[in-house]
Amino acid sequence: MVRTILVVGAGKSTSYLLDYFLKKSNEEKIHLKIGDLHPENIPDKFAKHPNCTVFPLDIFNEEDRKKAVAEASIVVSMLPARMHINVAHDCIEFEKHFITASYVSDELRALDEEAKKKGLVFMNEIGLDPGIDHMSAMEVIDRIRDAGGKMLLFESFAGGLVAPESDTNLWNYKFTWNPRNVVLAGQGGVAKFIQEGTYKYIPYQKLFRRTEFMGIEGYGTFEAYANRDSLKYRKAYGLENALTLFRGTMRRVGFSKAWQMFVILGMTDDSYTIENSEGMSYREFVNLFLPYSPTDSVELKMRHYLKIDQDDIMWGKLLELDIFNASKKIPLKNATPAQMLQYILEDTWTLKEDEKDMIVMYHKFGYELNGKKKQIDANMVVIGENRTYTAMSKTVGLPVGMATLQILNGKIKTPGVQIPINKEVYKPILAELHKHGIQFKEYEKPYLGYNPDSVAS
Amino acid sequence: MVRTILVVGAGKSTSYLLDYFLKKSNEEKIHLKIGDLHPENIPDKFAKHPNCTVFPLDIFNEEDRKKAVAEASIVVSMLPARMHINVAHDCIEFEKHFITASYVSDELRALDEEAKKKGLVFMNEIGLDPGIDHMSAMEVIDRIRDAGGKMLLFESFAGGLVAPESDTNLWNYKFTWNPRNVVLAGQGGVAKFIQEGTYKYIPYQKLFRRTEFMGIEGYGTFEAYANRDSLKYRKAYGLENALTLFRGTMRRVGFSKAWQMFVILGMTDDSYTIENSEGMSYREFVNLFLPYSPTDSVELKMRHYLKIDQDDIMWGKLLELDIFNASKKIPLKNATPAQMLQYILEDTWTLKEDEKDMIVMYHKFGYELNGKKKQIDANMVVIGENRTYTAMSKTVGLPVGMATLQILNGKIKTPGVQIPINKEVYKPILAELHKHGIQFKEYEKPYLGYNPDSVAS
Repeated sequence: MVRTILVVGAGKSTSYLLDYFLKKSNEEKIHLKIGDLHPENIPDKFAKHPNCTVFPLDIFNEEDRKKAVAEASIVVSMLPARMHINVAHDCIEFEKHFITASYVSDELRALDEEAKKKGLVFMNEIGLDPGIDHMSAMEVIDRIRDAGGKMLLFESFAGGLVAPESDTNLWNYKFTWNPRNVVLAGQGGVAKFIQEGTYKYIPYQKLFRRTEFMGIEGYGTFEAYANRDSLKYRKAYGLENALTLFRGTMRRVGFSKAWQMFVILGMTDDSYTIENSEGMSYREFVNLFLPYSPTDSVELKMRHYLKIDQDDIMWGKLLELDIFNASKKIPLKNATPAQMLQYILEDTWTLKEDEKDMIVMYHKFGYELNGKKKQIDANMVVIGENRTYTAMSKTVGLPVGMATLQILNGKIKTPGVQIPINKEVYKPILAELHKHGIQFKEYEKPYLGYNPDSVAS
Repeated sequence: MVRTILVVGAGKSTSYLLDYFLKKSNEEKIHLKIGDLHPENIPDKFAKHPNCTVFPLDIFNEEDRKKAVAEASIVVSMLPARMHINVAHDCIEFEKHFITASYVSDELRALDEEAKKKGLVFMNEIGLDPGIDHMSAMEVIDRIRDAGGKMLLFESFAGGLVAPESDTNLWNYKFTWNPRNVVLAGQGGVAKFIQEGTYKYIPYQKLFRRTEFMGIEGYGTFEAYANRDSLKYRKAYGLENALTLFRGTMRRVGFSKAWQMFVILGMTDDSYTIENSEGMSYREFVNLFLPYSPTDSVELKMRHYLKIDQDDIMWGKLLELDIFNASKKIPLKNATPAQMLQYILEDTWTLKEDEKDMIVMYHKFGYELNGKKKQIDANMVVIGENRTYTAMSKTVGLPVGMATLQILNGKIKTPGVQIPINKEVYKPILAELHKHGIQFKEYEKPYLGYNPDSVAS
């Protein structure tokens, strides 16, 4: 019997997911139904595939939505996170398993009991980050624990970057996903983590100056700045007693120190709008944040304000963005500084059609086993194919697709609202990801932690 | 016939106001009624005065409040700003004039039409800042305009500081009013102003490094950092065409640069609470914001993080606060960084009973008259008597008291919700303040503006 997989919402980042389902469609006897507000945007290679049906679906049209869910065997929501909940309620009503790549919201978590009662798997956070990070971390943590080890330290870093062959600018960065999220990164709350049992707090104004470095064999050195939420998975991962927990975002070395220029100037602020933003030149935009002078150049004011020496590559990074150009205009009305900065950055940081992105992930596991302190570092690198088939869409889409089939086939069956931290889930998916070239390399390292000599501080 | 002045709310800062009313009580045939939630806290010198009655008043008890308003000839609210509105509605109902020293809220402004219809004066912002700033500025602006001049520039600065004879610490600062407001100063929005027709924006992370300096004869040099709201009075003062508008907060030179240390560390953040704040030592508090090290001292980490040279007085400022003390504990539960910093600062910055505060205010008026550019600088210094009779309470309380009598006596009579920017109001009050030693000194200065040579930028 043919099973129907309903995918609601099929944005640009779903190319790998749809590919995956259709490649499996004959063997797995599945029919793919894609409900989207703009079905005309879905490429013919999917829309005209014999095992695929594309139909218009407005998620706020209750009748249409319920009908689509009722007819499906299983439901995957690739909608924006806030829209999942309506579909989730329908899945409870019509008793369908439900899969998303998004963080579990409180309202979704509230469906846990009902999902369990009806034997439904509500799988979330099964993309890249969150997703592959959970699975790859728990695989190592469980292994350490199964051997009798005790976790001391867990650090986890990830970044969406540009592949080495497309890395052509001084920032070693291009936008490979939502640029707005990049400009606003680190705002909205202090970064909090724990190191050797001591809580640490980094405010936004220092966030990009408190990076740590890490190397990946064959890919050189990266840096990472702290995420806001390093303690988020403490409970889920069972790391309540670990002395060090740190999560961070990876960039190429030097990016963060340069980004700090925009932070200090106030250009990343999204909380107010600029007077007369429409038609403002890049140069005028920069000058908004510098002291007034009737005679001094914007360039010299900038160098002085940010203490940029004549021979500092920071200056080259600014010039490369053409940020002092008096002819280039920003066309945005009532724009915030962050929106205007994003506009300027998109001018030079947009990925070209044939350029490739790169996903990097890095975990550190410090533990004690038989009285000895040890460390495992694990890292993963995935390179995209082009601007459509990105490493981002691959690492988000494939785990979603694999989980969907595993659930549909009854291999993953523990019911409830969950994230992929259990062996039943991560084992088969990591194994299948491996076949698609998505895998971690592990290295045994000497355990240093942050207090190698156990000095009392 | 004896008139009754009702004062609702009589906190610590009302000493001068109550004094003023009682000194005038025989001559003006007034009886003072003070309604307060804690009447027992009102000093005997007021409570037992023959022309004064003190009674318990809970502002949220509608019956009591209405009765008190109905029986009064005029009503002064010294309550916290958010509580004025209930009293204001009663004043409309019972047709009483109403006076506050607070900013006009939107809900209060909405009573304008009714107040006008009933011929009631609803006077607000008639303390120091807002209050004396409005009156002293408009006095000069009106004079310039009456002579045919055109305003080019207006800058206005004010500060609550410590008097020179009580200025005994390296920061040249003590808390002379609400310490919480000092710790949170500059947060909650970008500082925005206009210089030579160009908008400028300063984010919090640079606010305390963009000061300008000004000298006051006999009192040395001060600095000022930008207020959030420099354009606030543009319309009220009729300065829509002025090229430069700037409002700032005054400190002694060097304060802001040192305060920036706390900003950069993240110690002024009030948006989250610290884990285990209760019982944390000053030293542990500092260490929350510094990178972890098993061996390096908090002192050296701090010097390195903030780039403080061995011979920098910034270091002396930190030591003076005893901020590295491992024995002194902060007793606050679930405290924010800002609350914890405030606790540490109060330890050394609290005014002693016999110490004096100082109010400084400084205006710059740039204008064009008969084709010539000119400038007037005006400044005011008021020194307090002790911790009870502060310059702050004098400069807030006296204008409120004077306005109340002027309104009661029908000298100020233009009805409506207003601030003291009209001649009818500021002329008699500035004249009377003069008799109390509160006066501005004026200096003619060469007009420099920010573009003395009219260079096109």
